[in-house]
Amino acid sequence: MKKKRQKIEGRKPVDVALKSSEKVLKSRNKTVGQQAGSLIHIGEKLIERPLITVYLYDGMGVESRTLKDLGECRSLRQSGRVLWLNIDGLHDTSLIEKAGDIFGIEPLTLEDILHTGQRPKVEDFDRYLYLVLQMLEFSGEPGGMSREQLSIVVGEGFVLTFQEKSGDMFDPLRQRIGSVLSKPRKHGADYLVYALCDAVVDHYLSTLEEIENTIDRLEGELMDNYNSTVFGSIYTLKRELIILRKSVWPLREAIGRITRDDFAVIGDEVELYFRDVYDHVIMVIDTIEVFRDIVTGMHETWLAAVNNRMNEVMKFLTMIATIFMPLSFIAGVYGMNFRYMPELAWRWGYFAVLGVMAITFTGIIWFYRSRKWY
Amino acid sequence: MKKKRQKIEGRKPVDVALKSSEKVLKSRNKTVGQQAGSLIHIGEKLIERPLITVYLYDGMGVESRTLKDLGECRSLRQSGRVLWLNIDGLHDTSLIEKAGDIFGIEPLTLEDILHTGQRPKVEDFDRYLYLVLQMLEFSGEPGGMSREQLSIVVGEGFVLTFQEKSGDMFDPLRQRIGSVLSKPRKHGADYLVYALCDAVVDHYLSTLEEIENTIDRLEGELMDNYNSTVFGSIYTLKRELIILRKSVWPLREAIGRITRDDFAVIGDEVELYFRDVYDHVIMVIDTIEVFRDIVTGMHETWLAAVNNRMNEVMKFLTMIATIFMPLSFIAGVYGMNFRYMPELAWRWGYFAVLGVMAITFTGIIWFYRSRKWY
Amino acid sequence: MKKKRQKIEGRKPVDVALKSSEKVLKSRNKTVGQQAGSLIHIGEKLIERPLITVYLYDGMGVESRTLKDLGECRSLRQSGRVLWLNIDGLHDTSLIEKAGDIFGIEPLTLEDILHTGQRPKVEDFDRYLYLVLQMLEFSGEPGGMSREQLSIVVGEGFVLTFQEKSGDMFDPLRQRIGSVLSKPRKHGADYLVYALCDAVVDHYLSTLEEIENTIDRLEGELMDNYNSTVFGSIYTLKRELIILRKSVWPLREAIGRITRDDFAVIGDEVELYFRDVYDHVIMVIDTIEVFRDIVTGMHETWLAAVNNRMNEVMKFLTMIATIFMPLSFIAGVYGMNFRYMPELAWRWGYFAVLGVMAITFTGIIWFYRSRKWY
Amino acid sequence: MKKKRQKIEGRKPVDVALKSSEKVLKSRNKTVGQQAGSLIHIGEKLIERPLITVYLYDGMGVESRTLKDLGECRSLRQSGRVLWLNIDGLHDTSLIEKAGDIFGIEPLTLEDILHTGQRPKVEDFDRYLYLVLQMLEFSGEPGGMSREQLSIVVGEGFVLTFQEKSGDMFDPLRQRIGSVLSKPRKHGADYLVYALCDAVVDHYLSTLEEIENTIDRLEGELMDNYNSTVFGSIYTLKRELIILRKSVWPLREAIGRITRDDFAVIGDEVELYFRDVYDHVIMVIDTIEVFRDIVTGMHETWLAAVNNRMNEVMKFLTMIATIFMPLSFIAGVYGMNFRYMPELAWRWGYFAVLGVMAITFTGIIWFYRSRKWY
Amino acid sequence: MKKKRQKIEGRKPVDVALKSSEKVLKSRNKTVGQQAGSLIHIGEKLIERPLITVYLYDGMGVESRTLKDLGECRSLRQSGRVLWLNIDGLHDTSLIEKAGDIFGIEPLTLEDILHTGQRPKVEDFDRYLYLVLQMLEFSGEPGGMSREQLSIVVGEGFVLTFQEKSGDMFDPLRQRIGSVLSKPRKHGADYLVYALCDAVVDHYLSTLEEIENTIDRLEGELMDNYNSTVFGSIYTLKRELIILRKSVWPLREAIGRITRDDFAVIGDEVELYFRDVYDHVIMVIDTIEVFRDIVTGMHETWLAAVNNRMNEVMKFLTMIATIFMPLSFIAGVYGMNFRYMPELAWRWGYFAVLGVMAITFTGIIWFYRSRKWY
Repeated sequence: MKKKRQKIEGRKPVDVALKSSEKVLKSRNKTVGQQAGSLIHIGEKLIERPLITVYLYDGMGVESRTLKDLGECRSLRQSGRVLWLNIDGLHDTSLIEKAGDIFGIEPLTLEDILHTGQRPKVEDFDRYLYLVLQMLEFSGEPGGMSREQLSIVVGEGFVLTFQEKSGDMFDPLRQRIGSVLSKPRKHGADYLVYALCDAVVDHYLSTLEEIENTIDRLEGELMDNYNSTVFGSIYTLKRELIILRKSVWPLREAIGRITRDDFAVIGDEVELYFRDVYDHVIMVIDTIEVFRDIVTGMHETWLAAVNNRMNEVMKFLTMIATIFMPLSFIAGVYGMNFRYMPELAWRWGYFAVLGVMAITFTGIIWFYRSRKWY
Repeated sequence: MKKKRQKIEGRKPVDVALKSSEKVLKSRNKTVGQQAGSLIHIGEKLIERPLITVYLYDGMGVESRTLKDLGECRSLRQSGRVLWLNIDGLHDTSLIEKAGDIFGIEPLTLEDILHTGQRPKVEDFDRYLYLVLQMLEFSGEPGGMSREQLSIVVGEGFVLTFQEKSGDMFDPLRQRIGSVLSKPRKHGADYLVYALCDAVVDHYLSTLEEIENTIDRLEGELMDNYNSTVFGSIYTLKRELIILRKSVWPLREAIGRITRDDFAVIGDEVELYFRDVYDHVIMVIDTIEVFRDIVTGMHETWLAAVNNRMNEVMKFLTMIATIFMPLSFIAGVYGMNFRYMPELAWRWGYFAVLGVMAITFTGIIWFYRSRKWY
Repeated sequence: MKKKRQKIEGRKPVDVALKSSEKVLKSRNKTVGQQAGSLIHIGEKLIERPLITVYLYDGMGVESRTLKDLGECRSLRQSGRVLWLNIDGLHDTSLIEKAGDIFGIEPLTLEDILHTGQRPKVEDFDRYLYLVLQMLEFSGEPGGMSREQLSIVVGEGFVLTFQEKSGDMFDPLRQRIGSVLSKPRKHGADYLVYALCDAVVDHYLSTLEEIENTIDRLEGELMDNYNSTVFGSIYTLKRELIILRKSVWPLREAIGRITRDDFAVIGDEVELYFRDVYDHVIMVIDTIEVFRDIVTGMHETWLAAVNNRMNEVMKFLTMIATIFMPLSFIAGVYGMNFRYMPELAWRWGYFAVLGVMAITFTGIIWFYRSRKWY
Repeated sequence: MKKKRQKIEGRKPVDVALKSSEKVLKSRNKTVGQQAGSLIHIGEKLIERPLITVYLYDGMGVESRTLKDLGECRSLRQSGRVLWLNIDGLHDTSLIEKAGDIFGIEPLTLEDILHTGQRPKVEDFDRYLYLVLQMLEFSGEPGGMSREQLSIVVGEGFVLTFQEKSGDMFDPLRQRIGSVLSKPRKHGADYLVYALCDAVVDHYLSTLEEIENTIDRLEGELMDNYNSTVFGSIYTLKRELIILRKSVWPLREAIGRITRDDFAVIGDEVELYFRDVYDHVIMVIDTIEVFRDIVTGMHETWLAAVNNRMNEVMKFLTMIATIFMPLSFIAGVYGMNFRYMPELAWRWGYFAVLGVMAITFTGIIWFYRSRKWY
Repeated sequence: MKKKRQKIEGRKPVDVALKSSEKVLKSRNKTVGQQAGSLIHIGEKLIERPLITVYLYDGMGVESRTLKDLGECRSLRQSGRVLWLNIDGLHDTSLIEKAGDIFGIEPLTLEDILHTGQRPKVEDFDRYLYLVLQMLEFSGEPGGMSREQLSIVVGEGFVLTFQEKSGDMFDPLRQRIGSVLSKPRKHGADYLVYALCDAVVDHYLSTLEEIENTIDRLEGELMDNYNSTVFGSIYTLKRELIILRKSVWPLREAIGRITRDDFAVIGDEVELYFRDVYDHVIMVIDTIEVFRDIVTGMHETWLAAVNNRMNEVMKFLTMIATIFMPLSFIAGVYGMNFRYMPELAWRWGYFAVLGVMAITFTGIIWFYRSRKWY
């Protein structure tokens, strides 16, 4: 099937290739009509078995472990140190339920953690704050954008993070926690939340940078080969910007609430840091809008270029046709077989006709030049 | 008539098929100039005779019946249990009037129940709360969207629901009421309202999922056959998104008011659940906007693809014409019947002309290549 | 002149017929530079002589008369019954001035009554409330929309209405006033105002229904004949929606103020009824937006259909041309008169050439098929 | 140069004529980097020498003079009558400075008076109120719009107006001041300001009327000749609406503030009159938006008409070409010079071929009819 | 590489030249995942070594120096005079850190100074106010726009400005500081900030003026040569307006806050001056919107002109083809070699056929005229 398509494409140099994109909606088939509060994972199973890692740190020292059983957390929590528990993989709902039990998380929150594809938001439950973010990964190629939901629960002395698969953008942060004099070590759980949000938003900016590179590359291609797959790439890029915007836009409101409202678990100093994240989110939104405008412009340019090229081709056809049709007609006239055609017998008739043809030819060329058609 | 159209379509491979869509407005002819408060049903008669079903439940047990006469309700109401009365079919206005009488519903509300095609809204009448929602059914094919108005009246211990026809999305909810430990059984009438709204909004998400599948399928078709009925499907899809948006947009405000305002009949705990519904409504609206953007992009892509194809065809015509017109002209010249045409008598004249033709041919091909036209 | 145009149109099957539309602005030439407060009628004289009708009613009985002289009103006003004075035709400014005198209306209000083409609005003058509405009449054909200004002045026990011409949408209302048990008879002047507004807004909905019918009809025509006058109708429809929107949009604010603010002359109960009108106005605005989107989609569909058809035609031209040009060239070659053309003397030369032509023909057809161009 | 262009245009019947338009920005070269408060005139010198006229009036009488020297004002100001000082021409900065000195105007205000091209605004300086308006003059032809800044300073008993050139829309107002019983004579300086604003805004409405006439005329032309200069006119009209909108939009806010805020120099009664001006400004803005929509529609209609016409032409070409190419091919075949072509010798060969040609001709025509292409 | 492109362009007269534009985003690669507060410069190194200049002035005198070492500032600060420290070049982070140390600037501010590409904003830190602006330089050619971040820190008696490279728009301001009676000399540090902002915003207006000149020039070119590089310029212009808007839009909010809020370091009198800057920012934004509309109109005009030209060419082709195809066919018929073709033997056959051809020719011409196609 795929081979056949390639073969057809090989023959069609003008196709408008559309790359398959990330789905906008996660399939919810499993939950329609289910009562709220029942824990069901919405989303694909992206990892074989959940990976549980724990960081435990204060100004003095750091301890990091991979847990087999969540139960160990219960004792760790009392240690007075900041506890960062990260779970990669959400399909084991009993695990999430257990975490909810240990840290006192509401069923509605657990449900939101499992139902991936949430809008970014922040919800205050007094004892803890619940944040949803969308982590975006962009491969650098149009069509290469993928999303992953990051849920953050922050309470007194602990931070829980839930991801759909392993591998994330927090390794530099983990290193910083490792070094004694780093800021995270001097602050509490709220600073860790800030650092996580900052990493996610910073990653948006990197993604936008790569998109800008793609835009630059496509602009270059627009100049050289109009008919290639440029249009398909523009379409895919547009679609990715739409999805990106959908993921970031609500974050403005969410982060804005953190900077404005007085949440119990976020200290005043860290609120100031969140203002910085907020600035970045606004910048991301602005830049997405700018990119949308630019990509729209590229679309129009592509159309104009194709149009122009078409005009060129048609003008060439017109010129050739309008030159040779009259000439062929003249030749046709003297190709008639009438018995009485005086010109045919003339000595210089042939050359006179050739002369008439030359004059006609020149006249038409002159006509074209005078109209600036060529 | 229909047959004839099909015949014409059979001959037109390029038609842009438009499927008939759900009407945006319900015909109001019957009521223009009528005084407010007069009970007249606006909308088609979609069911033969109204179907009245009653659920009566509390933590202890459930009782469900189909009623012949509404009068029985009067006694059931006093039972201290949650009473859910559902009426399918609205054309028997005396029935609605009787229900209004039993449960103390204002004439204005009864009018809104009967005038289907209302905007989604919530209205507070102290003793009861009146909600209007639009239930959407999507067959999976462009053009397959149908709407039905759901009116919900919730008061102290009772929930009334009015639908235009039988068959709905509440069967899973009915099952849950049946099981002893389910949430509805533990809560009052307000939770039932939440569960109904949740089911309707969840169904929007399912509808959107199906629309996304349709979009994916159309994107695939866009690649393979440009001239087929793809465009008609895009148009119909666009139209359905317009109607969907019209049905959902006001719901944001309505559900938002339930989460914000302190309505007497909605408890604080259930208000929290409505926040969840509100999140879903926002998500539905976001997704509709995203789909509109995507469908607009598909429209542009279709145009670009058609344009491209046209260019291909024209370029081919131009190449053939510009090659053979000069060649035919040369042949024409030597087809003239002049008595004195020296070339005709030359021994190798014919072959020389063939050679000239070959050179002309090659020259034009080279010209095309140099301009990258082919 | 008109005849000539028709003749031209008769010859042009492709024309894009534009129907003359209602003017957006009323000519104000007469008043530029005039001081405010001078009573001058802006608008055409649409009726020969003003028609003054009076309804006088309470729960007991109704009295209706056509007045010759406004002076009679003075005595009627004291009767304790609701007085509804309707004046059709505004060009007799002295009449309007007299009405202003009898009912104590401010000069600025009188000016607004006479300057037709006002934005819908509500203005509170304590003693009375002044409302402006635009009544729309739609003939069912694109281009058949006409506007008329309705001014309503409501004070303690009286309602004055001013229309530009006779004939309106209030006859059902007049009948209801006639029947003893109807609501208007049980309420005061404020209810009458509500009933008038309701009739005007309900008429918008009827107009929208007719527009929807026109849209449906045009969608049908879009399928069958692309080049006819469909486009002109789409353009005219778009223009009518623009004017409709201009007439209705400010009404949202005006009616909204009546429901929110506490105007002395509007009772609390009637305010509740106005909420209903407000809902309808919102619905009208929503529907206009939806129709604008749909009409835009139809415009795009028309373009796509024309485009498609053009492509069909061009593809047919290309096929015929690319088949017969090479064939004609071959025939041309053997039509040359060279003395030494070995093929000409061959016994089967003619048939061989016919064979070559057949092969060429088949080859080109095969080429087309392989590219799916036909 | 101009002549040459005309010559070219004479030869190009399809040109899209663009008329030069009013500049959007006034050149500020002179002031970049200058400190605020330095009095420099921005704008062209539109009048040879400033013209200073004074009106001095109260209920009793009117006195009007042309002043040579501003100094005379100082004595006139004390007279207890309303003083209206109008200065036409702003390039004599010392004159403006002197006026500022006499009437106690802040340097920042003087600067704004001289820097023409300001946004409409109102600024309160307690002792006086400063208003900027843009007066628009429209010649009735696309491209015939010109702007002029009107600065109004109103204080206790005086009104100063500054215009860039002589000639304005206030002559009817001046006449009214002349008549004893007119409103301006009964009111103070604030009423004069209202009358000035009203005249300017009324003039916008006249301009819009003329634009509507132009739109009507262009719609008529759209029907008759597609390729003429209609498109250029549409473009110019669009541009003028853009500039008009820019001039009027901020006025909404400015006049709105006068009606809302309690400015010392504007009495309560006159505030009521300003509500009227505010209504007109809103109406102007609404109408501009409507016109923009209509002009956009005309643009699309023009494109559709051109498109349609192109299709007609192409269809005609296609028909002629597809008819005569096969026919010419047949003729070509029998024009070949093969020695053995049996048909050539047949007695009725010629007529048989003519018959075949007739059948081919009919077949192609039938094909066209069946596809409804013609 | 570049040479080759030029060669290709030389052969392509229809290319749509796209000029490379300023990047929208600065590369942030260096900081992703870094902790906030770490001082890293984002942006290119635009200057060899930082240049530190100091102005120290009060009403009495001015002192200006180029510093080698920032340490000297410490003593200068206590002098009671206004200290303006300007640093050109940001890549020496230790220098910025030292400045932060001397003037007590928060690490977050220092970070923002170094991370160029910030949105314009104002941040209040009680002891000082931090402003970010974007300085724009426009070369007058499409594609010639470049941005530079200007950071201003204003505290009690000092103003710090940070630029990315040397050369700016403040030389006129520096001269004014030099003259004894100038306003800056009479005011404090807050006035200096105002003067800096005013210079930046005034420069926007100059940039817009140059853009207007470019627009005027392009409009002229639109008339004369459609196919040239006009379209590329329009595209580039559009892109520059997008970037300009992104740079100015947030400034509205920032300057607006200065005029509204009571910042400790900005005196009331200077706040009044900032109102002037605010007016200018609004004007810049308005004008950008107007230009965007105009450029969009130019784009459409270009398309229409190209379209028109294409139609002209096609109509010419159609005319020539439809005239000569029938004529050539007639000639072809009498070029057939049938033995029995009675016409061939007629005495006047040849001339009769010429006559038929002339009639055919005239008929087609007449047909064209009647349809107004030519």
